[in-house]
Amino acid sequence: MPQDVLQDILVRRGFLCPSYEVYGGVSGFYDYAPLGGMLKRNIENLWRRFFVVEEGFFEVDTPTIAPEQVFVASGHVENFADPVVSCRKCGTTYRADHFLQEKLGAENLSPEPEVLQRLIEERGVRCNCGGELGEVRRSSLMFSTTIGAGGRRGYLRPETAQGMFVMFPRLYSFYRKKLPFGVVQIGRAYRNEISPRQGLLRLREFTQAEAEIFVDPEEKRVHPGFGRYAGERLRLVPRSGEVLELSAKEAVERGILPHEFLAYYMAHTRRFLMEVGIPGERIRFRQHLKDEMAHYAEDCWDAEVLTKRYGWVEVVGIADRTDYDLRAHESLSGVEMRAFRQFREAVTKRVMRLVPNMQVLGPEFRGLAPRIAEAVEKLPEEAAEEFERTGRVEVDVEGEKVVLGERHLRVERVELRQTGEKFTPHVIEPSFGIDRILYAVLECALAEREGKRVLRLRPQVAPVKAAVFPLVSREELEEVALEVFREIKSQGMPAVYDASDSIGRRYARVDEIGVPFAVTVDFESLENGTVTLRHRDTAEQVRVGAKEVPGLIRRLCEGMSWDELREKLAAAP
Amino acid sequence: MPQDVLQDILVRRGFLCPSYEVYGGVSGFYDYAPLGGMLKRNIENLWRRFFVVEEGFFEVDTPTIAPEQVFVASGHVENFADPVVSCRKCGTTYRADHFLQEKLGAENLSPEPEVLQRLIEERGVRCNCGGELGEVRRSSLMFSTTIGAGGRRGYLRPETAQGMFVMFPRLYSFYRKKLPFGVVQIGRAYRNEISPRQGLLRLREFTQAEAEIFVDPEEKRVHPGFGRYAGERLRLVPRSGEVLELSAKEAVERGILPHEFLAYYMAHTRRFLMEVGIPGERIRFRQHLKDEMAHYAEDCWDAEVLTKRYGWVEVVGIADRTDYDLRAHESLSGVEMRAFRQFREAVTKRVMRLVPNMQVLGPEFRGLAPRIAEAVEKLPEEAAEEFERTGRVEVDVEGEKVVLGERHLRVERVELRQTGEKFTPHVIEPSFGIDRILYAVLECALAEREGKRVLRLRPQVAPVKAAVFPLVSREELEEVALEVFREIKSQGMPAVYDASDSIGRRYARVDEIGVPFAVTVDFESLENGTVTLRHRDTAEQVRVGAKEVPGLIRRLCEGMSWDELREKLAAAP
Repeated sequence: MPQDVLQDILVRRGFLCPSYEVYGGVSGFYDYAPLGGMLKRNIENLWRRFFVVEEGFFEVDTPTIAPEQVFVASGHVENFADPVVSCRKCGTTYRADHFLQEKLGAENLSPEPEVLQRLIEERGVRCNCGGELGEVRRSSLMFSTTIGAGGRRGYLRPETAQGMFVMFPRLYSFYRKKLPFGVVQIGRAYRNEISPRQGLLRLREFTQAEAEIFVDPEEKRVHPGFGRYAGERLRLVPRSGEVLELSAKEAVERGILPHEFLAYYMAHTRRFLMEVGIPGERIRFRQHLKDEMAHYAEDCWDAEVLTKRYGWVEVVGIADRTDYDLRAHESLSGVEMRAFRQFREAVTKRVMRLVPNMQVLGPEFRGLAPRIAEAVEKLPEEAAEEFERTGRVEVDVEGEKVVLGERHLRVERVELRQTGEKFTPHVIEPSFGIDRILYAVLECALAEREGKRVLRLRPQVAPVKAAVFPLVSREELEEVALEVFREIKSQGMPAVYDASDSIGRRYARVDEIGVPFAVTVDFESLENGTVTLRHRDTAEQVRVGAKEVPGLIRRLCEGMSWDELREKLAAAP
Repeated sequence: MPQDVLQDILVRRGFLCPSYEVYGGVSGFYDYAPLGGMLKRNIENLWRRFFVVEEGFFEVDTPTIAPEQVFVASGHVENFADPVVSCRKCGTTYRADHFLQEKLGAENLSPEPEVLQRLIEERGVRCNCGGELGEVRRSSLMFSTTIGAGGRRGYLRPETAQGMFVMFPRLYSFYRKKLPFGVVQIGRAYRNEISPRQGLLRLREFTQAEAEIFVDPEEKRVHPGFGRYAGERLRLVPRSGEVLELSAKEAVERGILPHEFLAYYMAHTRRFLMEVGIPGERIRFRQHLKDEMAHYAEDCWDAEVLTKRYGWVEVVGIADRTDYDLRAHESLSGVEMRAFRQFREAVTKRVMRLVPNMQVLGPEFRGLAPRIAEAVEKLPEEAAEEFERTGRVEVDVEGEKVVLGERHLRVERVELRQTGEKFTPHVIEPSFGIDRILYAVLECALAEREGKRVLRLRPQVAPVKAAVFPLVSREELEEVALEVFREIKSQGMPAVYDASDSIGRRYARVDEIGVPFAVTVDFESLENGTVTLRHRDTAEQVRVGAKEVPGLIRRLCEGMSWDELREKLAAAP
């Protein structure tokens, strides 16, 4: 099928359209039109089933605007930028590395401005208009803004993750200080691309569903629920480039995947992608090359989906972010971002410490003596070692330095019983690009039957769950049909009602927008209270009671298969 | 109960916290911590039940960033601003009208900068630091940003509505050109307040759930489903200030409410608010005063909720925006934003039109003649009238003016049959502030029992639906309990499992976070397969089968009452 058929259907049938079309559009922004908006919510809600309900990770919701500090700490202010160059004549701005790749037919150019600058000079590259190019500079990929009238700088978040990291002290206490725990967020993120293309794949504003799983680094190797996925087969493309089909367990044992935590969430991701409607054989996991990884990641595997239009497309990134982010925020904010690890057995440690001699300190320093004593007690062990060598030590008391000698202090050796220690948790992060997943779902769903388009969206994600038709437009039939329609809606399922045109055209219309089930009320309905229930994918029809049909559709949308329904009906008396 | 108890519980128990706390916080931003995030999603999903499923309004999802034109057209660039003034000495910036109201004890000051400036000068008002105040200026309430490297100005949307208005041509065709139709959006909106206070009530970033209902202005008076709410009693505070209790029907008949469309959505709003847990007697509708209304509204009624902490608080605005927005976008974009109204009967109209005389035009204008003829045919009827009076007319052809006289044209009178006409639809907009509703829900839910806190969230919105406890920590009990726990989750309900501390403390812990149902597995469970099911609000317990309990909890969360459950159990053999 030609590639733009999909685009055409999506736009014409009300799934998607370029934003601000009436004003000529703004590239990098897409609207989810009525059906697309509903599909997107359903994908998000299914994701919640997998991560919130099944995994027990609570969902948080943090602002999209954050003050500058957050992204200074996270490294985005420094690292999240692309090299750009503008023409001195016509003013066009290009993403410098991409522009040079095109102009010079080069590949994998370094994004370093100096390297690109040199290349422009050496090869005499000019703008497409013939004009001279200016200096290559780095342009931040974050949208910046100003908070309040005071002019405090803020950014639109490039990932939802940071809002969860800065909340860590609250989360740790919410989860009663037990690791591992997870927290998720579904929301907007932003990336101020220089010149975005590729429709839904490169948006300036997009939706992420991210889970941050905080884990003790000493316990990463073993995931408590790994048994569930140990035998799950994964198609893996590690850095070496070979393609492997391995079970999650084998992949960890052979050292292809670093630990069970990563493997577990890769398998969980695959199950989710299949549940929304992407066939397993179109899914693979590719390991990031060293120079491709984000500045915060130690290891990262992308779930990729094979699309007809763009080839393999990254839709999820599953990264081991280590303690990078928590450490960075602790260091910039001064607020502790650590967890406590209980030792299996308490350990006893001999330590030295300094003990103030109050009989000397009291008369000598009067009112200041207690505060000096306090400062001495806070000194680290190294100070005691130093004191033993030099016989003197300096303390800070109310901004003044006080030098203390051997008459003021003595060294004591004590045994300290430690029941545990503090450490910075590591973070495993499955990060889902909802827009790309939605695109892949639509592409996989598109099919044809007898020359007509059928959108085979799984009932779980279909925007509209059922269509209700009176066979012809007659009051007695409409009355029954409207009652079925109301009852389907009252069970929480979006439905459409349509009494115009021939029944064939009505079926075709709902097939094209992916409505999985259609109920038709005909003259037999008036006699025996049954209606026909039609399955979109097979066009097969069964007769069921009008009273039962809403409940049956609900079960079909919750996972019962059409075959199961038929068996159930055959078994009924 | 003292006011800060609520704040304390909300923050301590994981519902809310100020954003970016570890960096000292940024006012006007709040995080939804784990329980708050889940509660918020549940409120949003219940809103979808009311507006998407019941009303059949599809959900769209449009970007939060929009180019400047959108808000030039909408009037926000011009009108959405507050007066501010800064101190020349200490640099503090104040919202000028609020600052003067405090300083001078004045009330209802005009927000006009000139008026406030004069007041400062006349009364010699100075900054709190004693410094001189600068000039009063208007400060936009929109967050501004830059799109791409080219420097195109964009704003973060102050309401989700505009994304739906600019999409009108697509929506109109999606709904097969039939009015009325509605479309909804739930998403972030932004308001760059000068100095926000009042916690969740004045946020710089907040969540709106908006429905835009496009209707033929000639059909506003009658809502097709009004029967459902005609008898619904509403507490109304019209502009006159009196408080009325009227049915929706009476309110329209007496002219208090302008039409059934507004009345219907007010009643629908009230039902929704009650469904999320706000008692009917705490809800009223207050009409906006003339000078309080947004620049786009013809009439607006706020749903207000009586809170303990802030008194009556606006949580929903239900406005008649007329054709303001569609007209504005049509005029700025040049793209038609109209609908077609079929006449009941076609009308015949006599019109005059100009007919070109090609025998004269051809030789005189050669190749230009066909284009002149075309231009003549497009002239409005007034041109023909004018021509009849003056004998001449001017047309524009390829940028040049051509004067035509009586030898070139003649006037023809024809009968035109019109089957309908174009018009600009009106928009009725219920706009919900999700954050404020969430605050009100929490305040209404807070209760005490025997000195302990119980959060009586309705099961429909409670973040966690069930808790599962083994009575004591023994393997046989835990096995059964974990099976029940898994089964509850597999039915899509978030649940918690807890085996630590006494059973009393566990009940207290889940009561405080609003978990409506608790299942305990005890020794009797091992004998006969039953468990206890406890109701949070009454602390009453019933014994039910371990296999049945997940399905029962699901039904309780979907609307079955505890009393209905007891009757059901009593009726069972």
